[in-house]
Amino acid sequence: MNQEYIKPDSWSIIEEGFERERVKSSESLFSIGNGAMGQRANFEEKYSGDTFQGSYIAGVYYPDKTRVGWWKNGYPEYFAKVLNAPNWIGIDVFIEGEALDLATCKVVKDFRRELNMKEGWYRRSFTAFTPNEVELAVKVTRFLSLDLDEIGAIKYEIKPLNTDVEITALPYLDSGITNEDSNWDDKFWSTTNLISEGKQAFIEASTMKTNFATCTFMRTKLFLNKKEIDRDPASVQQDELSIGHSYVQKVKKGEAFEIHKFGGYVVDTNHKKEALVPAAKSALKTASDLGFDALLELQKEAWNKIWEMSDITIEGDIKAQQGIRFNIFQLNQTYSGKDSRLNIGPKGFTGEKYGGSTYWDTEAYCIPFYMATKDQGVARNLLEYRFNHLEKAIENAEKLGFSNGAALYPMVTMNGEECHNEWEITFEEIHRNGAIAFAIYNYYRFTGDYSYIPEMGLEVLIGIARFWQQRATLSEKRNKYVILGVTGPNEYENNVNNNWYTNYLAKWCIDYAVEQLQKVKDGYPDDYDRIIGKTKLTDSEKSKWMKVAAKMYFPYSKEKEVFLQQDGFLDKELISVADLPKSERPINQKWSWDRILRSPYIKQGDVLQGFYFFEEHFTTEELGKHFDFYEPFTVHESSLSPCLHSIQAAKLNRMEQAYVFYLRTSRLDLDDYNKEVEEGLHITSMAGTWMSIVEGFGGMRIVDDKLSFAPKIPRQWNAYSFKVNFRKRILKINVSHDESKFELDGKEEMSIRVNGKKVVLTPREEVIVKK
Amino acid sequence: MNQEYIKPDSWSIIEEGFERERVKSSESLFSIGNGAMGQRANFEEKYSGDTFQGSYIAGVYYPDKTRVGWWKNGYPEYFAKVLNAPNWIGIDVFIEGEALDLATCKVVKDFRRELNMKEGWYRRSFTAFTPNEVELAVKVTRFLSLDLDEIGAIKYEIKPLNTDVEITALPYLDSGITNEDSNWDDKFWSTTNLISEGKQAFIEASTMKTNFATCTFMRTKLFLNKKEIDRDPASVQQDELSIGHSYVQKVKKGEAFEIHKFGGYVVDTNHKKEALVPAAKSALKTASDLGFDALLELQKEAWNKIWEMSDITIEGDIKAQQGIRFNIFQLNQTYSGKDSRLNIGPKGFTGEKYGGSTYWDTEAYCIPFYMATKDQGVARNLLEYRFNHLEKAIENAEKLGFSNGAALYPMVTMNGEECHNEWEITFEEIHRNGAIAFAIYNYYRFTGDYSYIPEMGLEVLIGIARFWQQRATLSEKRNKYVILGVTGPNEYENNVNNNWYTNYLAKWCIDYAVEQLQKVKDGYPDDYDRIIGKTKLTDSEKSKWMKVAAKMYFPYSKEKEVFLQQDGFLDKELISVADLPKSERPINQKWSWDRILRSPYIKQGDVLQGFYFFEEHFTTEELGKHFDFYEPFTVHESSLSPCLHSIQAAKLNRMEQAYVFYLRTSRLDLDDYNKEVEEGLHITSMAGTWMSIVEGFGGMRIVDDKLSFAPKIPRQWNAYSFKVNFRKRILKINVSHDESKFELDGKEEMSIRVNGKKVVLTPREEVIVKK
Repeated sequence: MNQEYIKPDSWSIIEEGFERERVKSSESLFSIGNGAMGQRANFEEKYSGDTFQGSYIAGVYYPDKTRVGWWKNGYPEYFAKVLNAPNWIGIDVFIEGEALDLATCKVVKDFRRELNMKEGWYRRSFTAFTPNEVELAVKVTRFLSLDLDEIGAIKYEIKPLNTDVEITALPYLDSGITNEDSNWDDKFWSTTNLISEGKQAFIEASTMKTNFATCTFMRTKLFLNKKEIDRDPASVQQDELSIGHSYVQKVKKGEAFEIHKFGGYVVDTNHKKEALVPAAKSALKTASDLGFDALLELQKEAWNKIWEMSDITIEGDIKAQQGIRFNIFQLNQTYSGKDSRLNIGPKGFTGEKYGGSTYWDTEAYCIPFYMATKDQGVARNLLEYRFNHLEKAIENAEKLGFSNGAALYPMVTMNGEECHNEWEITFEEIHRNGAIAFAIYNYYRFTGDYSYIPEMGLEVLIGIARFWQQRATLSEKRNKYVILGVTGPNEYENNVNNNWYTNYLAKWCIDYAVEQLQKVKDGYPDDYDRIIGKTKLTDSEKSKWMKVAAKMYFPYSKEKEVFLQQDGFLDKELISVADLPKSERPINQKWSWDRILRSPYIKQGDVLQGFYFFEEHFTTEELGKHFDFYEPFTVHESSLSPCLHSIQAAKLNRMEQAYVFYLRTSRLDLDDYNKEVEEGLHITSMAGTWMSIVEGFGGMRIVDDKLSFAPKIPRQWNAYSFKVNFRKRILKINVSHDESKFELDGKEEMSIRVNGKKVVLTPREEVIVKK
Repeated sequence: MNQEYIKPDSWSIIEEGFERERVKSSESLFSIGNGAMGQRANFEEKYSGDTFQGSYIAGVYYPDKTRVGWWKNGYPEYFAKVLNAPNWIGIDVFIEGEALDLATCKVVKDFRRELNMKEGWYRRSFTAFTPNEVELAVKVTRFLSLDLDEIGAIKYEIKPLNTDVEITALPYLDSGITNEDSNWDDKFWSTTNLISEGKQAFIEASTMKTNFATCTFMRTKLFLNKKEIDRDPASVQQDELSIGHSYVQKVKKGEAFEIHKFGGYVVDTNHKKEALVPAAKSALKTASDLGFDALLELQKEAWNKIWEMSDITIEGDIKAQQGIRFNIFQLNQTYSGKDSRLNIGPKGFTGEKYGGSTYWDTEAYCIPFYMATKDQGVARNLLEYRFNHLEKAIENAEKLGFSNGAALYPMVTMNGEECHNEWEITFEEIHRNGAIAFAIYNYYRFTGDYSYIPEMGLEVLIGIARFWQQRATLSEKRNKYVILGVTGPNEYENNVNNNWYTNYLAKWCIDYAVEQLQKVKDGYPDDYDRIIGKTKLTDSEKSKWMKVAAKMYFPYSKEKEVFLQQDGFLDKELISVADLPKSERPINQKWSWDRILRSPYIKQGDVLQGFYFFEEHFTTEELGKHFDFYEPFTVHESSLSPCLHSIQAAKLNRMEQAYVFYLRTSRLDLDDYNKEVEEGLHITSMAGTWMSIVEGFGGMRIVDDKLSFAPKIPRQWNAYSFKVNFRKRILKINVSHDESKFELDGKEEMSIRVNGKKVVLTPREEVIVKK
């Protein structure tokens, strides 16, 4: 744990007191988003202290030049990254001509931030004593509308406390912004048009190279003591990149002056390029006609609906409660599932690192959350995203020398093209391909919706199977197929041979593709013919795949009775993490890379990732053996690691351990375990936190096409509850130390399993299973 | 082969005809150097075509910022690189006010370059028809003085052929230069002082960050029809970074106008910083008093002396003759051995790539050449260079987590600090440490000068032995010491376990260090006590070393009867290079890095490098087996590869193969095999070419402390000869198809072995050994 300033609260994230060193961390923690755009918790008014400005538009990225030491063939030329977009939130405030700036105020007291997760808004309030001796109470409420997802709204309230003052408010738009994470100080935006029209303003700007055309817009309403002042700006301050509207108002001591600002973005991915300004005007009119308060009511309703389905309650442990809600809130802020062109960046809309791009995190960690808490169309959209990128994945594989439609999905992508450039990751961390196939399997297993496979998924599976067959090498020595030169999920090993997880997944992908080919052939002959026609798959090729799958090599130690993470793992010096001096950790900050590589330490579960995906292939005893062997070497220096270990520890009835892992995953950002929250939040691992409760403590699985639970509860909690949307039926589960309660909606009975026993649920009748 | 425009000639490199596309290649090939500075063959007068300007000062470097994707702990922050230094060669020429520029002349005929290797000068001549209709004959001769190594001299002769003209000559100095290979467009030089005094000018400039203070200087003499015109410049053209002296001269048709320019650098590594201008004046006075022609005579004598000792003659194969002389010439241009602070950059003074830094090339490839063709002090200077860097090598190892005086020499260095930043090289290509120990062994073996070891070498050996002991890991599984996570000489494998060459060298280093400890203890007890006191080496530590050496693991295949390049090598798909389509080669241009890594292809000999170093540890049959196994997978995409294979092929009596490898190594740059000569020459591999003849064809070895030969000759040659300086005795060897002749200088007899038989040589009496 690295910080403790966030107040425990079951529904809100709260900071009290103004400390300049915390500003950047809080800018991350209090970020807001609505799936279409995101906004770090930057101040509206001028702030001359240290800050990290970030406004992001989903799907709008820039191809920054690849930066690399020695160039390797096959590297992508560009590294796509999410862009800091033009600023729409800015409102400069001048008190008697002097700029309000928390960094220069004589006193700032009662500073408070609240991110109200229940209702989906962010509020900042403070009392400031300005250099020119004015005492002001300020309260700013901001949200990004879930309903009107091109719209954000700000209510900026100022009350002079000790004197009458003249306040100048300057709401503005600014496209002269920079990116923190830029490689080459390139200009990212080209501003093409600035329009000021009464209380409204518009900046049209396009991204360089990618040519996304956007319009950033604003409209202002003023109120004095809740009464609207209908007035055009006193003056317009415009330069090449920005427009500000100046409003001057005399405000008496004790009076409340409010600036309501509506703003946001429209993008040519959703509108015609030439119709951006009209689209912006229309969005502004809707918002402005509704007004801030009505729009906020809609926001509360929308979030209420989300929580209705996705909330997890925890009784008796407020920090755990706050943690899980923060995770669920951020996941919903990041991805709404409406748009299959979008995906879930590891930092969502809260920072620039990892470029806002798509990783295998989506398939391995995020899909279960969205499947169970949303309409199944959301998860299907995530699968479609990869289907839409299949051609690019085939091109990507071709660049690396594969042929005949073999597909290698990129490690990191925005538009389907690879945009990561470290050889040991880009070229070698190929297990990502398997996670994409697994997600198809997982989607059907959970939703029962087979239609994706004949419509789209089978082509993806064929491309992936082709890749694995071509990527494997027949070792004459072993008379087995080996997979050489890979990096597994544990990125603390590079360029290893026969990473067990990769080999296992490769074999499974081929087996699964073959099985689905038969199933589609039998059940969807037209789709089958179309796909075979398109992919030109022959029986002889398929038999090549099957040979590879049948003769895949798996490193195993007879002595230890475990599968080996890779060839040669037992040559390492096997000192457990517990025996490492604390001062040497985290090893990624303390050790040189070569030392990390030749050590046995595991950044995130690797063999155990395989045991997670394919739990039913192994006995609990085998899981225990592998967990006992690998967990002691796991340093969890990836945010994706503890959740998986929490689930497996729970399965193994090691609840103390499971709870420790759970806390670490759920409050990773709130408590800033990795000392980097100022760079943004770890969004994708938040889905893992959800899994820790539902799959870990709740023991939820699909067994024989039915939901199954094995509820457990950490001793620190009194009770917890969650809901799942299983095949359009909503099931609520409530677990306490003595019993579990199950309640189903809908009209028909449904049978589930609890601790291995069949339980029949009748709608709206709570079933209690005693411990 | 990529080009063929260099005319075959036994003593000169000649280009005829002006082709703009060849300018940059020729700028490399016609480079001149004198160990202290170097100069690409850039034109003196203005040239508006494509060119790569390069003037270099030995030992003057700049720490360019490291450029890397994902930062790894332990990376150096800076990448030292040789700097393009201020230009001293420039002479702008104006004909009736119009600049002479070969890129804009109406006609350029009789263009010819000659690099006269015998005498050490470079000449360029041409007839130009200028845009303003003047026909001019120009001849420019340039050299960097070996005797006055701060001085370069240019004789620029212009003869108008069709009319009387006014010629303005503007010799200049310019510190406003840029580097091609700069990462960040940083300014590298800070110009502090410009002085113009009569015919002389001086620019004082310091490198940024490293603060090398330099003075670049010039002095001009003019001649008309060989008669000196003693005249100060008509005007001085000076700005912030440059000084030009304008001389205006009416020249009648047929008259010869000559500009003699003396220039160069003095540096604060050799002079007091405040005395640079006086030092420059003194150097200029000496040069100018001597005059161009006398200085050139000294140059010829100096080169004559070099050739006297280091020439290799080849009869009946002019291209092979030209190739070997070009190699010997360049090695002598690059490193004179006078200064133990200097070393041999892979591109010498001919380009910027590889930063002009020191690699293991010096110890593995260059030392034998300098040992055999120079006074032994030269090789000793190269060893001292590493001794002087021992503290930095210890710091470098500490950065990577080693302790107690373990030393890891840098992969690339200027001043002893590591300055390379790819983890798989910097952190893992640790075999370089072994080459440094081997060079100590090799130096003593060849020169018989043991004094280096007690004085300096033993400390180096202790630091290296400590490193290997700490770097090895006890594999409980094998009950052997393994070395995990390394890159061998074959850089087409990264992060492998138990690279045979590395393991073998590690064991040998420890054994050798232990042996030398005993020898120094016995023979040099005072040195021993000093060194033990300083290094605090204990018997218990030494016994730890010995345990590692005794239980070192060597991967071996019983079936193939060869040592394996690394663990798992036999899992690869073993298709020989000959069976690869030509279109796929060179693989480093055609294949992605992952494909290269999982292939069996070898960039340069790896196991065979070990067989080269430790030939006497193995039988010829074993060499043959390993050569037969590995050679078919070797793609020789490193310039250091073919020479070693040539030597081993010769040893195995495979002379056709040896000859092919020889040609490839000796004309690598002249024929531009790798399509990159414009970036500079491959200097360090040129020493390998010398070895190919002396050790390969001549079969020279040291056996039982005596010189031994096994002369062979390619069928394409009539005869060849070389000389070696063996322990201060000069021996000349002449080999033809029927016989070998040996001739010794000095006063005493010396016995050698020829084809295994003892031969006693009497000074100045040729001994003929018949085939």
